[in-house]
Amino acid sequence: MGIKSCRILGIDPGLQNTGWGVIDCSGASFSFVAAGIIHSSTEKQLSERLAELYEGVSAVVAEFNPSEAAIEETFVNKNPNSTLKLGQARGAVILVPALQKIPVFEYAPNQIKKMVVGSGHAEKRQVDMMVHTMLKGVQSYKIGPDAADALAIAMCHGYMRSSVIRNLS
Amino acid sequence: MGIKSCRILGIDPGLQNTGWGVIDCSGASFSFVAAGIIHSSTEKQLSERLAELYEGVSAVVAEFNPSEAAIEETFVNKNPNSTLKLGQARGAVILVPALQKIPVFEYAPNQIKKMVVGSGHAEKRQVDMMVHTMLKGVQSYKIGPDAADALAIAMCHGYMRSSVIRNLS
Repeated sequence: MGIKSCRILGIDPGLQNTGWGVIDCSGASFSFVAAGIIHSSTEKQLSERLAELYEGVSAVVAEFNPSEAAIEETFVNKNPNSTLKLGQARGAVILVPALQKIPVFEYAPNQIKKMVVGSGHAEKRQVDMMVHTMLKGVQSYKIGPDAADALAIAMCHGYMRSSVIRNLS
Repeated sequence: MGIKSCRILGIDPGLQNTGWGVIDCSGASFSFVAAGIIHSSTEKQLSERLAELYEGVSAVVAEFNPSEAAIEETFVNKNPNSTLKLGQARGAVILVPALQKIPVFEYAPNQIKKMVVGSGHAEKRQVDMMVHTMLKGVQSYKIGPDAADALAIAMCHGYMRSSVIRNLS
């Protein structure tokens, strides 16, 4: 894959539901590859739940072989226990690309909205609409909100890298 | 190894320094096996630092082959960004035993102090002193504070399991 093309895995981490989405990029043109959600079992212990998330993301990486990964920077919640849970889930899922030496890029939530919709204060449904409008091939799939967010994260990284490459070349 | 004997890995997670300690238990008698600290490089990206911690704990597990693991429950910090960092480090290191199906037990900081020193409000140096007094064989080693904390976590689990087993048999 040349510098202008890549396959990006976007991850929207969460202890209960981790969304993922894979897109192919060629310059600033993106096409949908796959997306889904990894659930962890609420009745299990934390360590087992983190293992479920890790194994779920590992299976996605093994199947789709992304060359780069993008993950949402965690929003610090008002509830410190929620922040801690999210942090642990994020630590577990980010490890999958990190251990395989797949470069990981992090983006703040408002940076993702700004890149994908044009406004850092866009609503969730606007992000969802742009994902369905801009991503070739996604229209025929029913994508849930966590998976749509993961695709938006992947698209954000796709826009960033195409803009960096355009300015460097 | 029978139900009364086990080898416990204690982990004191932290993004910069993760302490670890391995002890052998036979009933409520403990002996020191090894202890140390895994550092992550502050100049690296978060994903790479988490991979360093994960790989460090993996090497400890591969060398010492613990049958059970114990980890401190994360204290929710006043600074939410610190909580988030610690959560991510904790998520990464807890995965090592979890993925290898080594049972993971979690203990609150004051539970560890109470078990090891006898008071939930014990000071750090009292914990350190008890680790050096109660743990056969540790006296001849120079153990840093993060590693001593990890040994205390392992001892806490050792006391808990020996008390449970005594009451069951």
